[in-house]
Amino acid sequence: MDEREDSRPPEDVALDERDRDAPPAEATGELDEDDRLKPEFVRDVIDLAESGEAEAARERVGRLHPADIADLFELARSDERPMLAGVLGDMLSAEVLAEMNDYVREELIDLLAPEQVAELASELDTDDAVAIIEDMEADEQQAVLRAMEPEDRAAIEDALSFPEETAGRLMQREFVAVPEHVTVGDVIDRLREDGDLTTDFWEIFVVDPLVRPVGTCQLSWILRTPRDIAISDVMRREQTLIPVDMDQEEVALRFQKYALISAAVVDKAGRLVGMITVDDIVHIIQEEAGEDILRLSGAGDGDINEPIRETYGARVRWLVANLGTALVASSIVGFFGGAIEQMVALAALMPIVAGVGGNAGTQTLAVTVRALAMNQLTDSNSWRAVFREMKIALLNGSTIAAIAGTATALWFGNPALGGVIAAAMIVNIFVAGVSGVAIPLLLDRLDQDPAVASSIFVTMTTDSMGFLAFLGLAVASGLTSL
Amino acid sequence: MDEREDSRPPEDVALDERDRDAPPAEATGELDEDDRLKPEFVRDVIDLAESGEAEAARERVGRLHPADIADLFELARSDERPMLAGVLGDMLSAEVLAEMNDYVREELIDLLAPEQVAELASELDTDDAVAIIEDMEADEQQAVLRAMEPEDRAAIEDALSFPEETAGRLMQREFVAVPEHVTVGDVIDRLREDGDLTTDFWEIFVVDPLVRPVGTCQLSWILRTPRDIAISDVMRREQTLIPVDMDQEEVALRFQKYALISAAVVDKAGRLVGMITVDDIVHIIQEEAGEDILRLSGAGDGDINEPIRETYGARVRWLVANLGTALVASSIVGFFGGAIEQMVALAALMPIVAGVGGNAGTQTLAVTVRALAMNQLTDSNSWRAVFREMKIALLNGSTIAAIAGTATALWFGNPALGGVIAAAMIVNIFVAGVSGVAIPLLLDRLDQDPAVASSIFVTMTTDSMGFLAFLGLAVASGLTSL
Repeated sequence: MDEREDSRPPEDVALDERDRDAPPAEATGELDEDDRLKPEFVRDVIDLAESGEAEAARERVGRLHPADIADLFELARSDERPMLAGVLGDMLSAEVLAEMNDYVREELIDLLAPEQVAELASELDTDDAVAIIEDMEADEQQAVLRAMEPEDRAAIEDALSFPEETAGRLMQREFVAVPEHVTVGDVIDRLREDGDLTTDFWEIFVVDPLVRPVGTCQLSWILRTPRDIAISDVMRREQTLIPVDMDQEEVALRFQKYALISAAVVDKAGRLVGMITVDDIVHIIQEEAGEDILRLSGAGDGDINEPIRETYGARVRWLVANLGTALVASSIVGFFGGAIEQMVALAALMPIVAGVGGNAGTQTLAVTVRALAMNQLTDSNSWRAVFREMKIALLNGSTIAAIAGTATALWFGNPALGGVIAAAMIVNIFVAGVSGVAIPLLLDRLDQDPAVASSIFVTMTTDSMGFLAFLGLAVASGLTSL
Repeated sequence: MDEREDSRPPEDVALDERDRDAPPAEATGELDEDDRLKPEFVRDVIDLAESGEAEAARERVGRLHPADIADLFELARSDERPMLAGVLGDMLSAEVLAEMNDYVREELIDLLAPEQVAELASELDTDDAVAIIEDMEADEQQAVLRAMEPEDRAAIEDALSFPEETAGRLMQREFVAVPEHVTVGDVIDRLREDGDLTTDFWEIFVVDPLVRPVGTCQLSWILRTPRDIAISDVMRREQTLIPVDMDQEEVALRFQKYALISAAVVDKAGRLVGMITVDDIVHIIQEEAGEDILRLSGAGDGDINEPIRETYGARVRWLVANLGTALVASSIVGFFGGAIEQMVALAALMPIVAGVGGNAGTQTLAVTVRALAMNQLTDSNSWRAVFREMKIALLNGSTIAAIAGTATALWFGNPALGGVIAAAMIVNIFVAGVSGVAIPLLLDRLDQDPAVASSIFVTMTTDSMGFLAFLGLAVASGLTSL
């Protein structure tokens, strides 16, 4: 079956045989219901590759989407990956590498000669090529760049001149821009003639003589408009432009807020220099939204493919900091040593007050960090958020105090002890609520990332306050003495 | 300036005056550098509205994008919103409502008559209309549906027949589908003639006589192909289809994995019934990725606009559960009451062991929950992940043990006590690592959400094990006795 015999579509629209004839992967059973490669399939391919049955392995992998081939490498063990790469050969394509986890890709790239990397990178849009090259060591990076065609090389060097995680790195230099005076027909003719254009674009940009964007035009608008209409009558003048030095997190928020499919990137002079499309942003939205959970717990990058030494470095730093703050809580307990000696039940009960308080603080912290990340909290409603958390804390505190107080009074047959733990619970849960919202807000206002440091401060506060309130009230109420 | 005098583009491509003439909002200073409305602007608009200067307020708000008008309502106080809605009138458009936070929207919708809601909903694509209507009380929902045109009503009732958070709710019924035999020219002519088509689409679907999708065609491919080529020679046969009953989280992962811009939704018989576009998915990716942090901390929906009573209900349930598990740790301490009485320093040191262990557990938990959510952990690499965490835990444990042990030995002048805390640290951080990865993996295998319950189990484990290891070793080493 060759559908291109009679008439060929333009070169880069044509898809290769594999794409055209392959059934969707889900139909052939390689994937489970969550679009993950089935473990038995992964095992099978690796076993075939290991036992020298390269053709059989390649035949199976040939049915997969590049994103799934990337997953196959991620799911293989680190020591199996070079062997798999050897067997699969050119199936480890530029597209597959672009889809791959950074750490796994780095491992594989290290195996290749600079010329091979250069060839792979030149098959990709600038943004994907940069992603492959940016993490290499400086000298290897230079070797790869030297091996590239001057034009590709210039585009990548230009991208690398922008700081990491900015729009300049993310954007592709391939886009369609037309002057204002052309008609819809002119645009269509130009698109039909120019074989060098990028394959995937969803909007075209209309620019003035200085190449500054004056409007954006969705392809559907062009398709639905008669040929003789001027493009300036179809385009939308209201545009959302992305400054080339904008941080990728802000780019992602902007795409999300204004539901963008693509956007023009402009330099300081307002000239169109690139385009960002939503499919490159989706990963960033996912990453940035998921990052907070890792930052709050001090888990560093939190990637399961990260080398163990790096993971250890990131996490242990956090645990040492935690050890330091735990000393504060510990010294409070130490101060009440005499009181505990007289009434050792206090030692058994005090972790409950600290623990539940810590939990209440974490709840508030999670909500506040999320709201800040989603730009929902500004100076307009910060105080409202603080008061809201105070009210919730009083409700939570009263409920927990009632339960813990009653249970303690009955268990120990000591109503005064029940009263002390109840009062300590209210105090600590209130403090937890206030610090859980106030600390991240304060860090945000000081231009610090509220997700990074706040949990250490909040935990220190709830631990210390839990011990202080409980042991202090026990002494103040005459249950015990210092 | 009226650019449409000489020649009009098709009706629904034409944009209204406001869209055409308005400068981008960022240029006029309503927004800060993070695209958030400036607090002084918000205050200004509300003050104008309150003091009866409706025209001035409307004039300011008129420059904003619908997403920013939605933000304005979210940033206003709850008691200011009805007044603001009254002053802004039709600026509170269907599009603004579609962009608004669910809770804030519900508040405003409650103020409207069913006929008004029906009119607003009929201006939107099905997916956005459903989002507005789905959370209403059953009788109000019926009243709104009765007030709608039969066609709109049928589409919405159809959408509501699918479970919440499935593709059937998310999809729009407006899409472009053509039979296989037409040419590129036929498609363009049809798009130019049909004024009822949806405005925003990025791909068209090619269907067989039973309306089952056989291929997808990006608009750019159509634009770049001569008119006489058959559409079946331009389309891509390899498609990613979305079953109508698929959960939205899986839809989001599929969009992300395969970098989709839009996708055909099919019913059980494989017939094309709708289309999902990436701009509707971006919100879901954000939400789902950010949800885990809220679930891990038991913060419920975690929306700062949620009514306090609902927030209280969600959070207090979690704190009560936490109180229950804290009892386990507490009873372990209670068991060692005699040992603590003899050596009260133990009471001061034990929270450190439990606290740092809890932190180590949370780090592993966060990494594992993220990896599961991103489909990176399958049966192929679960054991590898467990061994990886064990190694990291041993490295972390040894480091923390060395620091805590040395410090304790010096501080208390008691090397044996230093040895005990060091050993307890290693044990507890190791247990933390194993439970932090094994508990969420186990919950996932049991088809439970690993983010929801695992932190309670992990904390209980690290607290109990911290106390048990430290106090137990203190007794076993003869430092103290039961």
